[in-house]
Amino acid sequence: MAKVAVIMTDLFEDSEFTSPKQAIVDAGHELDVIGPEKGAIAVGKQGEAEVEIDYSIDEVKAEDYDALLIPGGYSPDKLRGDERFLDFIRHFSKERKPLFSICHAPQLLASADVLRGVDATSVPRISVDVTNAGGNFINEAVVFDKSGLISSRTPDDLPQFNEAIVSALGQV
Amino acid sequence: MAKVAVIMTDLFEDSEFTSPKQAIVDAGHELDVIGPEKGAIAVGKQGEAEVEIDYSIDEVKAEDYDALLIPGGYSPDKLRGDERFLDFIRHFSKERKPLFSICHAPQLLASADVLRGVDATSVPRISVDVTNAGGNFINEAVVFDKSGLISSRTPDDLPQFNEAIVSALGQV
Repeated sequence: MAKVAVIMTDLFEDSEFTSPKQAIVDAGHELDVIGPEKGAIAVGKQGEAEVEIDYSIDEVKAEDYDALLIPGGYSPDKLRGDERFLDFIRHFSKERKPLFSICHAPQLLASADVLRGVDATSVPRISVDVTNAGGNFINEAVVFDKSGLISSRTPDDLPQFNEAIVSALGQV
Repeated sequence: MAKVAVIMTDLFEDSEFTSPKQAIVDAGHELDVIGPEKGAIAVGKQGEAEVEIDYSIDEVKAEDYDALLIPGGYSPDKLRGDERFLDFIRHFSKERKPLFSICHAPQLLASADVLRGVDATSVPRISVDVTNAGGNFINEAVVFDKSGLISSRTPDDLPQFNEAIVSALGQV
């Protein structure tokens, strides 16, 4: 069983949390939602999902997790100015642990400066930020990088994204 | 009298449109709101401002305007994948006409690739995107570049931003 961290806050893209969460839990893994404030309710951009934050970023250690999931929407933009989240992300990149990124999540990866030389995808309209951050933008449903980064573009890619997540977690 | 184009859509940062608009109109200039669809109502991120789109991007020519204002919020993210808006922006940069950018507006400037070698500011959390796009990020209330770009960071900078806008429009 793997232990997966999710970092998110308000305006996350609803299905980019709820769908991978279901796949991760169904596969028998554990998942903690980490945000700026423990107990706060993060409301999705579509107003469909409300998620309680399990732990504040100050309460957790990246070392305690096997993998990281970052949903998209405007949540990554809201978190990217906070060095605590960037340090958390850098651990997974440095240790080559699985890091699951979808849609706008690479905004956080660009701020953490973990995209240099890395194959990645994102919602196409931020591809310029991925490229400018040194990443190799690839316009495919799921992109695998040797660093452990597994990335997808939009909610339409969720079936393939979830399959890749479950497969990667089966190997940790 | 100058003719100012504004490009925006839903989730613009309310005061980053309403406040400069007031300053521009009070100074005797004309202002057209341009978006994806004529007649649509763009609703601000704070839910305070509702703005009717005067013209669709397909109906206007950048050549007909003396200056361009891009409010922030999530509107720039929503427009940056649309080449019509990027071409519109490039005209002002190429012709060195005044281009007023605040908060998240540099996301559009990065997509239009008009930041190389340019002094600019933005909301601090996207400074990495400005730098990666070749811009010189400067953390000041108003930053002037020789290309005509005048940029500010957040709604807190609006008094200085508006003053700079009115001053620039007085010279066109």
